[in-house]
Amino acid sequence: SSTEDTRASDPKIENESIFAPLDTFPRRHIGPSAVSAAEMLQTLDPPAKSLDDFVKQVVPSTILSSKDLSVEGPMPESGSMATSEGGYSESQLIARLREIAADNKVYKSYIGCGYAGTRVPEVIKRNILENPGWYTSYTPYQPEISQGRLESLLNFQTMVCDLTGLAIANASVLDEPTAAAEAMTLSVNALPMARQKRKNKVYFVSHLCHPQTIAVLESRAQGFGITIEVGDVLKDNSKRVEEIGEDLIGVLAQYPDTLGGVEDFRGLADKVHKLQGTFAVGTDLLALTLLTPPGEFGADVAFGNGQRFGVPFGFGGPHAAFFAVSERHKRKIPGRLIGLSKDRLGDPAARLALQTREQHIRREKATSNICTAQALLANMSAMYAVYHGPHGLKRIAEKVAKMTKVLAKALTDGGLEIRQPVAFDTIVVTKPGAAMFAQKCASNGRMNFRVIDDDHLGITIDETVGKKQIQEILGAFTTDAVDVVQLAEGLEANTIPEAFQRTTPYLTHPVFNSHHSETEILRYMNHLQSKDLSLLHSMIPLGSCTMKLNATTEMIPLSWPEFSGIHPFAPIDQAKGYMQLIDELEKDLAEITGFHAVSLQPNSGAQGEFTGLRVIRKYHEQQPGKKRDICLIPVSAHGTNPASAAMSGMRVVTIKCDTHTGNLDMADLKAKCEKYSEELSAIMVTYPSTFGVFEPEMKEVCELVHQHGGQVYMDGANMNAQIGLCSPGEIGADVCHLNLHKTFCIPHGGGGPGVGPIGVAEHLTPFLPGHPLVANVGGEKGIAPVSGAPWGSASILPISWAYIKMMGARGLTHATKITLLNANYILCRLKKHFPILYTNENGRCAHEFILDTRKFKETAGIEAIDIAKRLQDYGFHAPTMSWPVANTLMIEPTESESKSEIDRFCDALISIRKEIQEVEEGKQPRDGNVLKMAPHPMKDLVCSEWDRSYPREKAAYPLPWLKEKKFWPSVTRLDDAYGDMNLFCSCAPVETLDDMTGAAAPMPT
Amino acid sequence: SSTEDTRASDPKIENESIFAPLDTFPRRHIGPSAVSAAEMLQTLDPPAKSLDDFVKQVVPSTILSSKDLSVEGPMPESGSMATSEGGYSESQLIARLREIAADNKVYKSYIGCGYAGTRVPEVIKRNILENPGWYTSYTPYQPEISQGRLESLLNFQTMVCDLTGLAIANASVLDEPTAAAEAMTLSVNALPMARQKRKNKVYFVSHLCHPQTIAVLESRAQGFGITIEVGDVLKDNSKRVEEIGEDLIGVLAQYPDTLGGVEDFRGLADKVHKLQGTFAVGTDLLALTLLTPPGEFGADVAFGNGQRFGVPFGFGGPHAAFFAVSERHKRKIPGRLIGLSKDRLGDPAARLALQTREQHIRREKATSNICTAQALLANMSAMYAVYHGPHGLKRIAEKVAKMTKVLAKALTDGGLEIRQPVAFDTIVVTKPGAAMFAQKCASNGRMNFRVIDDDHLGITIDETVGKKQIQEILGAFTTDAVDVVQLAEGLEANTIPEAFQRTTPYLTHPVFNSHHSETEILRYMNHLQSKDLSLLHSMIPLGSCTMKLNATTEMIPLSWPEFSGIHPFAPIDQAKGYMQLIDELEKDLAEITGFHAVSLQPNSGAQGEFTGLRVIRKYHEQQPGKKRDICLIPVSAHGTNPASAAMSGMRVVTIKCDTHTGNLDMADLKAKCEKYSEELSAIMVTYPSTFGVFEPEMKEVCELVHQHGGQVYMDGANMNAQIGLCSPGEIGADVCHLNLHKTFCIPHGGGGPGVGPIGVAEHLTPFLPGHPLVANVGGEKGIAPVSGAPWGSASILPISWAYIKMMGARGLTHATKITLLNANYILCRLKKHFPILYTNENGRCAHEFILDTRKFKETAGIEAIDIAKRLQDYGFHAPTMSWPVANTLMIEPTESESKSEIDRFCDALISIRKEIQEVEEGKQPRDGNVLKMAPHPMKDLVCSEWDRSYPREKAAYPLPWLKEKKFWPSVTRLDDAYGDMNLFCSCAPVETLDDMTGAAAPMPT
Ligand SMILES: Cc1ncc(COP(=O)(O)O)c(C=O)c1O
Ligand SMILES: Cc1ncc(COP(=O)(O)O)c(C=O)c1O
Ligand SMILES: O=C([O-])O
Repeated sequence: SSTEDTRASDPKIENESIFAPLDTFPRRHIGPSAVSAAEMLQTLDPPAKSLDDFVKQVVPSTILSSKDLSVEGPMPESGSMATSEGGYSESQLIARLREIAADNKVYKSYIGCGYAGTRVPEVIKRNILENPGWYTSYTPYQPEISQGRLESLLNFQTMVCDLTGLAIANASVLDEPTAAAEAMTLSVNALPMARQKRKNKVYFVSHLCHPQTIAVLESRAQGFGITIEVGDVLKDNSKRVEEIGEDLIGVLAQYPDTLGGVEDFRGLADKVHKLQGTFAVGTDLLALTLLTPPGEFGADVAFGNGQRFGVPFGFGGPHAAFFAVSERHKRKIPGRLIGLSKDRLGDPAARLALQTREQHIRREKATSNICTAQALLANMSAMYAVYHGPHGLKRIAEKVAKMTKVLAKALTDGGLEIRQPVAFDTIVVTKPGAAMFAQKCASNGRMNFRVIDDDHLGITIDETVGKKQIQEILGAFTTDAVDVVQLAEGLEANTIPEAFQRTTPYLTHPVFNSHHSETEILRYMNHLQSKDLSLLHSMIPLGSCTMKLNATTEMIPLSWPEFSGIHPFAPIDQAKGYMQLIDELEKDLAEITGFHAVSLQPNSGAQGEFTGLRVIRKYHEQQPGKKRDICLIPVSAHGTNPASAAMSGMRVVTIKCDTHTGNLDMADLKAKCEKYSEELSAIMVTYPSTFGVFEPEMKEVCELVHQHGGQVYMDGANMNAQIGLCSPGEIGADVCHLNLHKTFCIPHGGGGPGVGPIGVAEHLTPFLPGHPLVANVGGEKGIAPVSGAPWGSASILPISWAYIKMMGARGLTHATKITLLNANYILCRLKKHFPILYTNENGRCAHEFILDTRKFKETAGIEAIDIAKRLQDYGFHAPTMSWPVANTLMIEPTESESKSEIDRFCDALISIRKEIQEVEEGKQPRDGNVLKMAPHPMKDLVCSEWDRSYPREKAAYPLPWLKEKKFWPSVTRLDDAYGDMNLFCSCAPVETLDDMTGAAAPMPT
Repeated sequence: SSTEDTRASDPKIENESIFAPLDTFPRRHIGPSAVSAAEMLQTLDPPAKSLDDFVKQVVPSTILSSKDLSVEGPMPESGSMATSEGGYSESQLIARLREIAADNKVYKSYIGCGYAGTRVPEVIKRNILENPGWYTSYTPYQPEISQGRLESLLNFQTMVCDLTGLAIANASVLDEPTAAAEAMTLSVNALPMARQKRKNKVYFVSHLCHPQTIAVLESRAQGFGITIEVGDVLKDNSKRVEEIGEDLIGVLAQYPDTLGGVEDFRGLADKVHKLQGTFAVGTDLLALTLLTPPGEFGADVAFGNGQRFGVPFGFGGPHAAFFAVSERHKRKIPGRLIGLSKDRLGDPAARLALQTREQHIRREKATSNICTAQALLANMSAMYAVYHGPHGLKRIAEKVAKMTKVLAKALTDGGLEIRQPVAFDTIVVTKPGAAMFAQKCASNGRMNFRVIDDDHLGITIDETVGKKQIQEILGAFTTDAVDVVQLAEGLEANTIPEAFQRTTPYLTHPVFNSHHSETEILRYMNHLQSKDLSLLHSMIPLGSCTMKLNATTEMIPLSWPEFSGIHPFAPIDQAKGYMQLIDELEKDLAEITGFHAVSLQPNSGAQGEFTGLRVIRKYHEQQPGKKRDICLIPVSAHGTNPASAAMSGMRVVTIKCDTHTGNLDMADLKAKCEKYSEELSAIMVTYPSTFGVFEPEMKEVCELVHQHGGQVYMDGANMNAQIGLCSPGEIGADVCHLNLHKTFCIPHGGGGPGVGPIGVAEHLTPFLPGHPLVANVGGEKGIAPVSGAPWGSASILPISWAYIKMMGARGLTHATKITLLNANYILCRLKKHFPILYTNENGRCAHEFILDTRKFKETAGIEAIDIAKRLQDYGFHAPTMSWPVANTLMIEPTESESKSEIDRFCDALISIRKEIQEVEEGKQPRDGNVLKMAPHPMKDLVCSEWDRSYPREKAAYPLPWLKEKKFWPSVTRLDDAYGDMNLFCSCAPVETLDDMTGAAAPMPT
């Protein structure tokens, strides 16, 4: 495309000094060159004179920021741009990051507490974690072009089911503590309706659960009116369970427990079940290769952190937590579930099952708001199991168990006291002055123990521990005279107490028994990858999802041991680099959002919502007056909004939208504000709106709500349209979450990880979430933590930090302008062919817009899904389908797409429009036409019989460039009806759906 | 495949201690599990009782080593295996490598001399250098499954042509000095025949060429009887050229020269041409974005190092050197050339043009032996140009030039003397006590200058230099009071002397003007990659090429700055890590080959041959008696053998092979030995033979040749069949080269890089090649260097080192056994369906064997090429075709392929055999059948018209698993006739070919 010939950069974002570095980033991140952008401005309808004129047609003047964004960049030694304006060049950034990384100290961590050292197989690291083919793909809502990661997630689920001994497992949840919270709310759901309505609801939690789990349960329990009771769940034959009686919703235990012990829970399980409660167990996948699985001793739910299956500490995350339930609860499992179905040709094919449940349709009736999960990490963990197989995993577990025994024996022989017999990987050593001792071991021995109390240390052994490490530990306890080799030889072969020895097989499926050489696993991973469309192939124009470039330089630090090798509860002086980076990121995000402070703890957008609302609640609690618990939410809101509000203990009141403009119905808002003035807690709004428009009256909305004592929660999913032009804080919001995995370049990873920090105004700062194990996190009156780790998924924060630092204030602002231009350019090209749902009074959209495809249902029997599937034949991922409006498509290009790619996409949609017209004109039948039969994988075309109304060439190559560059779906259209009816767990058909929130349709995440 | 279920490892290669690490490597490298191997032994015909019994049936007892291999491994602290037996685990290896790397000091190097700092764009590094899709593919001899890298190499050629201003460029040569040597021999070739036969041949070389270039020319000139005269080529109006007169073969100059100057060569060029000589110019691609290109001032040849286009120093390599010639010389260009042709459907498609030239058919008449080149690095450099585009490259060059001017001005202002006006990037500063000064700058300032002589330092500036570096340099010269910013502002815009300013455009092709955003280049690279079959997809059973696993852990250090960031001529105390690693690798390779010493300098197998033969010649020169220059070479030898012999100045005498056994004809050998007893220099043999058999009489061969005063050169291409079982040294060879890119896991990179070290017996050690710029390289009487860098392609040596260290002695030996087993297993499965050409008396082959497909030409009109192309439809790369025997296929599986993959491959060939049978039986026509029409890309099948004799399904899915796992060729069969006739440079049709050395067929590399 010769129009992109010259990458003449916008003068505003380029340095002129001859000393300025040339490897500047904005021109690499932003798709259209200056020449293309000028062309696009011309092509708009009406054309715009300049980029800034254009921006004024998009963003209401009342909303526009009065000052320029300021982000601290490199010292201007290297160029003429001020440090607050210009960004780091790519090489400058790597150099700076190396400095920061050097301030982290990677000591051996034996802290345990749900995190253990692991060896990430290099082949998996390079070919999944460092491979854009895996990390840039989206949640597999379009199964025909996602079979690879669907298959891998199915492996994950199978692995979890096998190891836990339970019937059904989901495709990951955010972390172990939130998994515990999901288990708690599932327990409520599982109660008979009458019991659910009871005032007193007690969740009885073992004091031997990980402390961060208990803390997160606290934060989640409140909204549901649940009382968390922490105690010894086995004491006196679990008498307390009976005492709680009908108030009991369930019991939670840890196995092995946080101090390393295992207990027999059979009797407890019976008692819980007798009371119709749910028995949940936090557990460890590696331990389960040796221990009787929870499913065999009566657990209804088992969950935990899959981290030690090949995902590094990462200072707390991201890792894939797992969640499994018994047959009885399979319809209640939260999060994403992959199911096997079949395609049009009857061949087996995987898909996201039960997609339309939970918050997507239940909204304020939901008990979980999880969307973005940990797909990328789940795939890594699943692949770790594929690579090692049952035999290999067992050898690892046995080694860990034996090492732990050797250590315990050596310490005991050395005169130390070990608290209980070794069950698996953790021992507790009695050591007066434990804290001081641990500190000394860190500074002198570069190793971390867990300080349990003044007199006790915890030591957790993992697969990275060898003789050297055992000797170092013994050295620290000055018991290293022991000959550990001799000692090891004296131990019995099987170290697991007989009563707990696992007898049932696991991972018997061939996939876990075939790919053990590096060549085999490499090919297996590549084969899966080859089925999936990602940003490697073409634009993924998903409205509300911001599928922008995830630049390599941003991704680099993830692989560095200085970032990946740190335990989340390591002494903070070992994480100075992290602290520096986190400080800077918080500061920059605060500046960008116009807020006073930021918490990076929430590890998804939905988590951010929950956190922000909890903060608002806590704030209100401190104020005099009535309990404020009404949350106003426009009908157009994302399903997570009402779900989060409900989970925070709020009552949701819906606000209408103007059916013509899509804007908030101000009259309705006013009426509701007045009606609930005394009880008003908050409003949740998305800005620009989920319809893709900068509503002009947003400031008035904020003022109104404030007048009535409410707080304004802004869903920042659409922040990409704002940066540098306006900000939630200036507009008047009090809280806002950001999806770093949208706006700030954390890749979507096929469905996670994400990071959902919140920014808050000054008055809310004291309530930002804290952490039980790490000091100085959050505000002075901070709410209980919402994630297991103090800074959530810390190891991916360098991505967003790098993005901001390389773009600089000017680059970020320019990107926003181009993102608006790209969307409006598409809008203008397409509006001659399709109705557009909402635009502002200048005919402009924000960074996305809704293509209204509803009329085709009548004119041609064609629905949005047919267009979506047909787009696959053109090599594109569908836009967001049927959300926020059923049977429409929402298109968001981002600034990273070039004019030529955008033109390809427009050409495809225009070509599809012509195909629809053929049906409208009767030239093609309403059934079995090229849209209805789409997508067309090779196997559908390479067949002798052909009785369709269109030729094969038309199916495969409707536009000429497809002959050169074609991505092939791997299966024909999924049979959703069959899949829902014949879910591999054969559950009942899912509920039917209402209209406004989008029908047979996934949500953007 | 449930047979691979248990990866129970061979007890011989596994540790039993509980402290032994579990991430052991041999079981990951070796495909078949112990269970599979046992099964395979059973399936052999006749079956073998045990692996060791089997080995005895393969390797003659006289050849088998008497002792176990010993390789120093980790201290046995971690396990029970002795350090000489067991290998490092993957994590142990990375830890050890980190230690070694820490001993390298990465200082800023301003040494120049043909190497300059560069910024490798991270997106290119991750997605090409670190991407197995690019690094594990083979030389693109099968164009239908190689269009991606062919297109990229075409970009490389186009880039070189554009920048040099010459008509045609090849797809890379090994390094700049060998490129100079190629220019020299091309000059001989280009002379009229009478002049070629003249006794005196003088190559006149500018004293301003890089010193290593001049040194390598020396080593290459001798064999051709060329005298190198070094001098001032411009002096007195190039009077000396006229004086040399008819003895002149050509002139070589450097532009800009090694001291940074540029001169007008027009007059010189005319004089050279008048004498029918060739004018060659060593040059710099970046400089040529600003300077008049060589093609515009009369150069016939331009060459140089493409390193600074995005390939790091790497302590000397590998980098892609480039080589371009004028229209007049296009048929003489050495190395690989990519040409545009068309496929069966008439669509454009690229291919290796003129494949069958040079050593492959010319053998002892060849003037170049280059095979393996620098494809991977050429792709990186080409992509660097695609990423930056002409505009971006020019900006980089201008910055470099300006920085150099600023530096020169500041130094001059500071009272220092600069030797000549700045032309581009290099200045010479007068500085008495230069060596001491440079040393001080290194130790105090962490920067390296070039010490030209006692009074002069060279400083070369590159794109990584910014204000900070300029100030540091000025600081070293204590002239840093200067305000460089002000100084820079005072300089004129264009820094290039007017007479040398480039006026012609370059890189105008759209490919260099479209992919400048990261998203665009990422998709472009991925699109190219998606067309190529590599080890990611399936086994590549290329006989003589050893396409084994290139493990991720082996590849990791390539990305570390401690290995990539060191200039080859940096003071050696900055490369202590390298020295340690090189020492260990030399020692291990010596042990493995049974030799006394090893030189790692040769950077390909062919280079190794040349080096080994030069060493033999030098040895003979030291002995009393006649000049020994006869080299005996069996007819079965690889084409590089006679070519290398000829280049070393030897006369080649061919030895017959027994047509029945394939073994050397001992009677013929005896006769020739006797006949040439006085003149016998050497014999070159490959072992096991190129026919894939361990000849039983190899020891006798060695003795016989030794008796006649000759030396034994062993081509170690087949070393993979020997390691741990036998060794060239023990058998009686005197020299042997190894292809580290075959046996020792350096990936083939789509046609390079390679490393071809030689091992030599003690008496040859003094003659190992030295280096003019680095002390203590090679032997005391070392031959002149064969590569520009002292240790050749140093940065990839960690790969082979890591392989050896992780396998350990036992792992290596076990791998050899399995490689033999894998080959024999295939042989046994296939021999029921195809004739096998040669086996030993037990019916066994070595690590490879020849499938004799010749009879099908008669029975069905089917040739080896048809089978090769049809294999693509089954998802496999063809075995080596028509070499060493025309119209046959040579199969080598390596130890890394699992039984299940091997079975898939056998099933494919057996299925193809049935397809041939259908033709034989008249069920399918002799023309237009599924073999003749193969391969079948999608575009060939997705069409409405279908009038073939077979259905589409048969074309695409002849075996059931293809529906699940299918690799699609991207074009139909290449039209070789058209390509050769219509070469993009429209050259004459290539010569026809003889039989024994393989016809329309590539050579294994
Ligand atoms: C408007 C809006 N809010 C909230 C979310 C939830 O974010 P997450 O998936 O990170 O939980 C999304 C996700 O797409 C969204 O589009
Ligand atoms: C037997 C033999 N000798 C020599 C060579 C040349 O090696 P290189 O390509 O590394 O120059 C080859 C390459 O395949 C070979 O097979
Ligand atoms: O270099 C070769 O063409 O084998």
